[in-house]
Amino acid sequence: MRTIIVGGVAGGMSAATRLRRLDETREIVVFERGPYVSYANCGLPYYVGRVIRDRSSLLLQTPQSLASRFRLDVRTGHEVLAVDAARRTVTVLDAASGETSTEGYDELILAVGASAREAAGHPGIPTHTLRTVEDVDAIGALVAAAADNPSALVVGGGFIGLEAVENLVRRGIHVTLIQRGPHLLSPLDAEMVAPLEAQLSSHGVDVRTAVTIDAVEGGVVVLADGSALRPDFIVDASGVTPSVDLARTAGLRLGPTGGIAVDAQNRTSDPHIFAVGDGVEKIDALSGDAALVTMAGLANRHGRSVADVIAGHEERNTPALGTAIVKVFDTVAAKVGWSERQLLSAGREHRVIHTHPTSHATYYPGAQPMSMKLLVDPATDRILGAQIVGGEGVDKRIDVIAVAMAGGITASGLARLELAYAPQFGSAKDPVNQLGYVADNLRTGATRAIQWHELDSAVAAGATLVDVRTGGEYAAGAIPGALHIPVDELRDRLSELPAGPVVVHCQVGQRGHTAARILAQHGFDVVNLDGGYRTWVAASAESARRLAAV
Amino acid sequence: MRTIIVGGVAGGMSAATRLRRLDETREIVVFERGPYVSYANCGLPYYVGRVIRDRSSLLLQTPQSLASRFRLDVRTGHEVLAVDAARRTVTVLDAASGETSTEGYDELILAVGASAREAAGHPGIPTHTLRTVEDVDAIGALVAAAADNPSALVVGGGFIGLEAVENLVRRGIHVTLIQRGPHLLSPLDAEMVAPLEAQLSSHGVDVRTAVTIDAVEGGVVVLADGSALRPDFIVDASGVTPSVDLARTAGLRLGPTGGIAVDAQNRTSDPHIFAVGDGVEKIDALSGDAALVTMAGLANRHGRSVADVIAGHEERNTPALGTAIVKVFDTVAAKVGWSERQLLSAGREHRVIHTHPTSHATYYPGAQPMSMKLLVDPATDRILGAQIVGGEGVDKRIDVIAVAMAGGITASGLARLELAYAPQFGSAKDPVNQLGYVADNLRTGATRAIQWHELDSAVAAGATLVDVRTGGEYAAGAIPGALHIPVDELRDRLSELPAGPVVVHCQVGQRGHTAARILAQHGFDVVNLDGGYRTWVAASAESARRLAAV
Repeated sequence: MRTIIVGGVAGGMSAATRLRRLDETREIVVFERGPYVSYANCGLPYYVGRVIRDRSSLLLQTPQSLASRFRLDVRTGHEVLAVDAARRTVTVLDAASGETSTEGYDELILAVGASAREAAGHPGIPTHTLRTVEDVDAIGALVAAAADNPSALVVGGGFIGLEAVENLVRRGIHVTLIQRGPHLLSPLDAEMVAPLEAQLSSHGVDVRTAVTIDAVEGGVVVLADGSALRPDFIVDASGVTPSVDLARTAGLRLGPTGGIAVDAQNRTSDPHIFAVGDGVEKIDALSGDAALVTMAGLANRHGRSVADVIAGHEERNTPALGTAIVKVFDTVAAKVGWSERQLLSAGREHRVIHTHPTSHATYYPGAQPMSMKLLVDPATDRILGAQIVGGEGVDKRIDVIAVAMAGGITASGLARLELAYAPQFGSAKDPVNQLGYVADNLRTGATRAIQWHELDSAVAAGATLVDVRTGGEYAAGAIPGALHIPVDELRDRLSELPAGPVVVHCQVGQRGHTAARILAQHGFDVVNLDGGYRTWVAASAESARRLAAV
Repeated sequence: MRTIIVGGVAGGMSAATRLRRLDETREIVVFERGPYVSYANCGLPYYVGRVIRDRSSLLLQTPQSLASRFRLDVRTGHEVLAVDAARRTVTVLDAASGETSTEGYDELILAVGASAREAAGHPGIPTHTLRTVEDVDAIGALVAAAADNPSALVVGGGFIGLEAVENLVRRGIHVTLIQRGPHLLSPLDAEMVAPLEAQLSSHGVDVRTAVTIDAVEGGVVVLADGSALRPDFIVDASGVTPSVDLARTAGLRLGPTGGIAVDAQNRTSDPHIFAVGDGVEKIDALSGDAALVTMAGLANRHGRSVADVIAGHEERNTPALGTAIVKVFDTVAAKVGWSERQLLSAGREHRVIHTHPTSHATYYPGAQPMSMKLLVDPATDRILGAQIVGGEGVDKRIDVIAVAMAGGITASGLARLELAYAPQFGSAKDPVNQLGYVADNLRTGATRAIQWHELDSAVAAGATLVDVRTGGEYAAGAIPGALHIPVDELRDRLSELPAGPVVVHCQVGQRGHTAARILAQHGFDVVNLDGGYRTWVAASAESARRLAAV
């Protein structure tokens, strides 16, 4: 039996090594177009920034090491041009010799990934993506060759774009970052991303959102807003689209997203051809629909499970949650599941919770602020998504919520999780537990809440906004028009409240909850402003910035 | 309605504040024997070590602040001496006036915690526990008053004992730590704790295990092994036992562990009396039996849920997993569920997995080594427990596994968890995913493994031990009697293997798995040494140390 694998990184190589471990006698051939296999894609930006200084540490395996340990026949510099599914052959171009050959297979695994979405190449300005070792070598050469006051344009403020920005700044490059959408990191919602944009600006990055390239001519980039830039080079991180040219030659079915359609065993429409990685559709865990989820973890896992399937084991993919994280300077941003924007555009009912806890017990030094957002199905209490932005401890909390989602734990159920507590690591009521308590209060009706974007209409409809923070907090900045009554004085000053509905708010939502409970029990029609002043400020900064950018 | 709460920390105060939020009109009285309420118990050792310098940061609330925000009637310096369950009254001693009074209740909540297990007081040597603000004030005074070359004896190498040791060392105290059991941190297994003991020794701590105090006389502590110490003071962290004196006066039923027996709503055998916190039995999640699980998180959570029950809400405790963590200098140790020792003594079938991954991708700087242990029910693939020792990222992984256990995710299912991956935080195959892969290989029979303590008998029974590491690794230290054939040469050197069973091992178990797969497919009867050389060394160090101590 002979298995051919096209693509020698992540999914392809996971499939190859696992298949060998399961089957010592099978012939396994890996064709890789580029010169390297099994390299650390996710480390590439950090090699540009010299955080990773040793180039060899990116190259996890070589064709030689894979031959000795796994008896793999790995051929770099070999591009598979076409698949003949009927004959079970591939046509392969050997770049070195320029010759093509035909190779037969019993099973074929396509692991060719995705490629840059935008048309590559801007006349007069060197442009590279950040997907391969060759990309970072080229970018490294551009950085080294740059003049005084070197500058770069990064196109795309997603995960890779942000990592590119940070690492170019480390190299002393002045970076302009443009983003097509209204805010950076589009998998997160606008009010969550505000601190990240502030962080970039404080590092001298020129962040421009809701803008695209209009034209590039004679070394000048003209943006859609009419402004012009003269970057020394461009890094294109504008997103990727599944590489499906090869799949088309094989006549494979593509799915609604444009990716290669596969079943739960990563089998394509041809029973002898499998596909894994960024070129392939996954099943979204929340909708059950096809979705493109381009995560290294899924590529590796599915590569391994394809090997199991080929070796005759029972193995099925689970739907994807799309857990992701990025660190940009000192800020960490992470998400799992759906965003509020996605839920809104899908017309899916949801409840929103914002909290602003600290990474660990405040009595222990070094606690860092964190902003969390939880999206909940109000009918079932199911967790639909989460977003966390902060520093230390963000990675832990997003993983905890991702596992809770995988295990079917409800939003209220987060309150019951037994998380490891010592003061360096969390709180007796961990931030994730606290999210659960808020969810439970909303579920049972113990609290009612409104969102930052609902405040204006509530006030316009006659609600009184009451700020229950301390005098010091109020003096440092308040929501215009709020009546200020500290929560500790509220019971004695009920008579100061006009008749009609009340919106209370504090700094983060917790004292607001206590105030809302007091007022509700005294007969008031009261709601708490979710996430308090902090969420309102972040959202307002975001709104103001977006308005200013128009 | 009038609710009396006995005990004003953790569970008691969570109950009081939640009850007020749910019921604005109820009379809520809190009696606290000591001078402080709502203080940060888990921060106390760090105040001794001056990691926490500001004493006020330990005192989260005062009777005054609780009165203004929550209209609580908090009476410190008031000890409840007895409960008359039939009359629904308590007898209270006011320490300041020396007068006793009788107070009636509709519901009573006992939140009096636990107290030191050992008889307090050693003639001639000041001795304190580490449970209250008064304790740390007294220890702080002893540290300040200590002579040149100050020394202390810490009794008990559990979580609190280890925190005490670290913080006394920070203050320049020479510390001897004695532990009754055969190794420190008895909730973990011996081979996992070895690095922690090494870490303590490297900080000059004199660690003595399997030893107790025989006698204390004239300022000299004589240990059971005959050795004598002259510490300036003793910190008693030898463990706690539920405080049940008050429960006894009420005629409440105690459970098989000696703690107060409660139902899933924390109701005692008297329907008007509830109890929460360290004095109360919990239900163990794995056995369904009563167990003492003295964690701050559970005390807080149950305090809150008792308030819900009293206010008429539906609320039931979930069984306890006992997730716990401790940081000692640079080493972090954490556990959830049962240890191997517990499983063995309960005669419960289990499978053991040891791994030694790094905290994040090795190509990114700063990755730290980590040792993990997973305990699995071989019949159901259920996770029975986990232990992790390392540095960065230990807290995240123990939480991920704890949540997986809570969500009913199997050991093999850990492979499918979508954990957030960027190179600062993990790997495309996270250490937790890797545990899942190993579990899956054992479940399906793709690999068979033996444990470090089974190696000698396997060899005695005629198995050949094959070390498949590199020459450099082998030269740096090897298991005596091992035949050395690097995995990459194995296929070509099969003829060197004698007939009969084979045990393979590498450094951590991964290459051993590949080697075992190769050999199995070539017809050998082969098992992989779980956890490889690293687990064997840790276990041997532990065995050697224990033997040396005899």
